[in-house]
Amino acid sequence: MANAEAATVTNKQIIFPDYVTGFPKESNFKLTTTTIDLKLPEGSTSVLVKNLYLSCDPYMRICMGKPEPLSSSLVPPYETGVPIVGLGVSKVIDSGHPDYKKGDLLWGLVGWEEYSVITLTLYSHFKIHHTDVPLSYYTGLLGMPGMTAYAGFYEVCSPKKGETVFVSAASGAVGQLVGQFAKLMGCYVVGSAGSKEKVDLLKKKFGFNDAFNYKEEKDLSAALKRCFSEGIDIYFENVGGKMLDAVLINMKLHGRVAVCGMISQYNLEDPEGVHNLPTILYKRIQIQGFGVCDFYDKYPKFLDFVLPHIREGRITYVEDIAEGFESGPSCLLGLFEGKNVGNQLFVVARE
Amino acid sequence: MANAEAATVTNKQIIFPDYVTGFPKESNFKLTTTTIDLKLPEGSTSVLVKNLYLSCDPYMRICMGKPEPLSSSLVPPYETGVPIVGLGVSKVIDSGHPDYKKGDLLWGLVGWEEYSVITLTLYSHFKIHHTDVPLSYYTGLLGMPGMTAYAGFYEVCSPKKGETVFVSAASGAVGQLVGQFAKLMGCYVVGSAGSKEKVDLLKKKFGFNDAFNYKEEKDLSAALKRCFSEGIDIYFENVGGKMLDAVLINMKLHGRVAVCGMISQYNLEDPEGVHNLPTILYKRIQIQGFGVCDFYDKYPKFLDFVLPHIREGRITYVEDIAEGFESGPSCLLGLFEGKNVGNQLFVVARE
Repeated sequence: MANAEAATVTNKQIIFPDYVTGFPKESNFKLTTTTIDLKLPEGSTSVLVKNLYLSCDPYMRICMGKPEPLSSSLVPPYETGVPIVGLGVSKVIDSGHPDYKKGDLLWGLVGWEEYSVITLTLYSHFKIHHTDVPLSYYTGLLGMPGMTAYAGFYEVCSPKKGETVFVSAASGAVGQLVGQFAKLMGCYVVGSAGSKEKVDLLKKKFGFNDAFNYKEEKDLSAALKRCFSEGIDIYFENVGGKMLDAVLINMKLHGRVAVCGMISQYNLEDPEGVHNLPTILYKRIQIQGFGVCDFYDKYPKFLDFVLPHIREGRITYVEDIAEGFESGPSCLLGLFEGKNVGNQLFVVARE
Repeated sequence: MANAEAATVTNKQIIFPDYVTGFPKESNFKLTTTTIDLKLPEGSTSVLVKNLYLSCDPYMRICMGKPEPLSSSLVPPYETGVPIVGLGVSKVIDSGHPDYKKGDLLWGLVGWEEYSVITLTLYSHFKIHHTDVPLSYYTGLLGMPGMTAYAGFYEVCSPKKGETVFVSAASGAVGQLVGQFAKLMGCYVVGSAGSKEKVDLLKKKFGFNDAFNYKEEKDLSAALKRCFSEGIDIYFENVGGKMLDAVLINMKLHGRVAVCGMISQYNLEDPEGVHNLPTILYKRIQIQGFGVCDFYDKYPKFLDFVLPHIREGRITYVEDIAEGFESGPSCLLGLFEGKNVGNQLFVVARE
């Protein structure tokens, strides 16, 4: 039902001025202020929301590149001159859609702005029914990254108890969950991350069997051999490039690689060469690229699985929460330098 | 039953002197002559065979390299100072094994020599029951390459009618069959090969929809785009390197790559870098390395499938048959220059 009290308020936005080549920088974001009517026009089927938490995810760099058919198959390129689009947790202010009413909470794609008018399409947004867990979790553990870890690990990796699992970018929004899922299954899990703090987190908080700081290892293959004397059954790939090269020659026979991301490659004009591909043949390895978009039909099943684990303390989650709408750009840029510890998000409003 | 008449005869052999770096050459083979008793010792469970046809296959280059754990996972390295081991069609002279008797025909692993004593292990050798087809086919169409094409296409590629299929090294022992299997399934099939003669063969004899000479194409990606305006669903990979790089950016969403071989890489000390791996993510591609060794339990099913197709003329096969035992080394070397047209084998004896 449409909101009876109409009000026009200011609406801060972070605009995407133009396509990015190489590493993105602050000038690739433009803060602006506009106004918005807090009532939808009569007959609208959209939903007007107030954005509470907005999330910074590595895939967003792909959207910032010049539109081209390859990467557009996974994620649509950004439109220039309008707000950045990302995932967020939002509260319904007015709704023309029968599934939503004022006060409902949802997560999904919204503009980087204080208020958004959203058009619902299949799996673009999910209503939030469980609020006994932190609401911010719906940008991470209970949102896209959580679903990515769940689908990637259970559906793509075909894991079995006792197998050896390596996760790169292991303290990130997705990696920390893959490691914990693998531990729950009885796998031997090792993670890589980019600082001592993150490595400690992996071992002490998330229960990884071992972990290493890739920045301190001169020879990545030797580091992997040290951690996996018998080789790797499953590699959950988040970084690409040199790490993938090193992993390939450490894979076991019939090993599986789930390609979730390749963050080391997104800012390069030409991706790095990976040399050890003959290993795919020698070890009869399967490499499977996947996108969470193909698995959202399993979201209810995922919630049934993960919520009890959270409530009973078997799954934990680390978030890197910045305060204030204006912190968005620096949070997103920080991802590509590995500044974030855990899932990176920023708070637009608490309620 | 052991042969009652014993005779000692000369036995020509092609010895493997030492491990090979880079392109192999004539000096990597040593012709020698020894003698052999044409009767097995009392109590032997081996089989003594006379070798009729011996086959040259690209995987043999992998066996010629210095033993190392990676490639050894697929094929065992050669022993130095003893005959090269390859696939052949042979006739039983004497047998201590209950499954074989004098006069039986078999195909499987034998030494490059006129007579071999073989020890049977699971799937090391297969008895030949059907001789209404050319016996030499058991080194190709009805042997390891045929089984490779069958398993690789039907089991690994998960093909569907109407899909687009690209085959590299398409006129080779395996490639020519993959193309024909794909046509039988109602796919659109394009092949690459290294000469005009081979390209003509693909189009005119094997029924490929299109084909190109990769040596004449300045831009492999452009050649693929010309042949596949909508992209490639299935790539049957036999060559690796630059071709794989070009194929990746021409794959369709959810495309599949079956890695059967990477002949362009076997003679390189360091494999080439492949740059377009982020496409695996963007297009959610599956790459699966496979070895025929994992599929030999399906050999009887394969014969039931393929024999009627051969007898009724729906599957054809091109062989490159050299005469004489001494031609072995040059035939094998020729593979790496693409000299062979079709399955390369040489005749040791006609019966």
